Amino acid sequence: MIVIGELINGMYKDVGKAIANKEIDVIQHLAIDQCKAGASVLDVNTGPYSKNPKEDMKWLIESIQKVADVSLSLDSTKPDVIEEGLKLVKKRAIINSTSADQDKMDKIFTLAKKYNTQVIGLTMDRSGVPNNKEKRLELAATIIAKAMDYEISAEDILLDPIVLPVNVAQTQGHEVLESIREFKLLSDPAPHTVIGLSNVSQGAKFRSLINRTFLVMAVANGLTAAILDPLDKELMDAMITAELILNKNIYCDSFLDAYRKK
Amino acid sequence: MIVIGELINGMYKDVGKAIANKEIDVIQHLAIDQCKAGASVLDVNTGPYSKNPKEDMKWLIESIQKVADVSLSLDSTKPDVIEEGLKLVKKRAIINSTSADQDKMDKIFTLAKKYNTQVIGLTMDRSGVPNNKEKRLELAATIIAKAMDYEISAEDILLDPIVLPVNVAQTQGHEVLESIREFKLLSDPAPHTVIGLSNVSQGAKFRSLINRTFLVMAVANGLTAAILDPLDKELMDAMITAELILNKNIYCDSFLDAYRKK
Repeated sequence: MIVIGELINGMYKDVGKAIANKEIDVIQHLAIDQCKAGASVLDVNTGPYSKNPKEDMKWLIESIQKVADVSLSLDSTKPDVIEEGLKLVKKRAIINSTSADQDKMDKIFTLAKKYNTQVIGLTMDRSGVPNNKEKRLELAATIIAKAMDYEISAEDILLDPIVLPVNVAQTQGHEVLESIREFKLLSDPAPHTVIGLSNVSQGAKFRSLINRTFLVMAVANGLTAAILDPLDKELMDAMITAELILNKNIYCDSFLDAYRKK
Repeated sequence: MIVIGELINGMYKDVGKAIANKEIDVIQHLAIDQCKAGASVLDVNTGPYSKNPKEDMKWLIESIQKVADVSLSLDSTKPDVIEEGLKLVKKRAIINSTSADQDKMDKIFTLAKKYNTQVIGLTMDRSGVPNNKEKRLELAATIIAKAMDYEISAEDILLDPIVLPVNVAQTQGHEVLESIREFKLLSDPAPHTVIGLSNVSQGAKFRSLINRTFLVMAVANGLTAAILDPLDKELMDAMITAELILNKNIYCDSFLDAYRKK
């Protein structure tokens, strides 16, 4: 599983404040802690209140790369902000994200090709988020086809079926889970699948329980990447155990520690 | 989900002792506690050390039915022990179990028809437990076909793919999970699917974590019944949440309590 740590995001109050005041320690601790907890990629998002997102993106990347040798997922709706970041990354990056709209994909895949990155493809377009599996699959196929136009392998696409909050869109859990299973069949080699996990419990009670339960169900359906809070120990335990059950890590009595020491 | 409480089983030391000494309080407390925790069926097994399994089965059933208005799953390898129990049950029972061997199925389905019960069908035969999904499906189809010979509906069959311990048969987790998904396609109406959950963590560390993770994965694949320890609160929380995600219970902030009060 590709664990993408979600915590360096200006939408969180403390992080937004750290970005505004250039409190480098806050960001660097978040980077180190997430990597120690098992993240192999860190999402980087300047947040909705950044006054200068290009400069903030550059500062975040430089701050993180001083203390962590880790891949970054550059998370912005603005291609020029992403490109500023791509000029600085030391390891192969992920662009987070493109929708299935043709003009958006043209911009993002051009960057992906130029900077040799992976891309998260959201199965949505200007008409919104689909409310069933079939429409998600149609948009996923659109994204894969467009990637091929740019000679980008399906293995470098992470298809995101878009998880909705269980308390307002309860019918969508099953549609998303089945989408994950079927996205894998769209091409050979198969694309990756990814979810922005925390959204499933937005506004709900028992958030951690809902998050880890949904993640385990998604792993059962073949999920290969997730944007999540790696500092939620019970969540990581659940993920490690789900992968153990699928024989992706060899059983030993200390399988939880063994995974974390990898 | 049909939750079948596993705790009244003479294989557990305290229960074996209670059966031998006819300590009715021990059995009745186990019955009441499991029902309160969410079991809708109680498994009843006299255990391997019972000197008189027919008498012990009768005593267990009578003891339970004095305090709990609950369906029973009569768990014995001996058809005559099961039949003694079936004469006493007040609600529709489950026979636990038949294998896919023709002579065994003839005996068990004859009883099922005579006493109008449901039947757990283990997808194994004298040659052993299959090591892949395909053989499990073949044996499942054999069981469904035989049930039809007896005019027993597939809805009254609970197909059990046989969960093996993750620490000794790590390749089998995936085979079992995919079997659950495909068993449902064998007939319309679909058969139930059931697992003896605790076996997945036999001899392993972190048993409760492994159990609840496997159960959630099985629910994601459409599992409709499980034999488990309903007193494991975290396990029940995980199951309730998995069913919530699949929209089987309506979301409310107190969804855990709401399920238990049903």
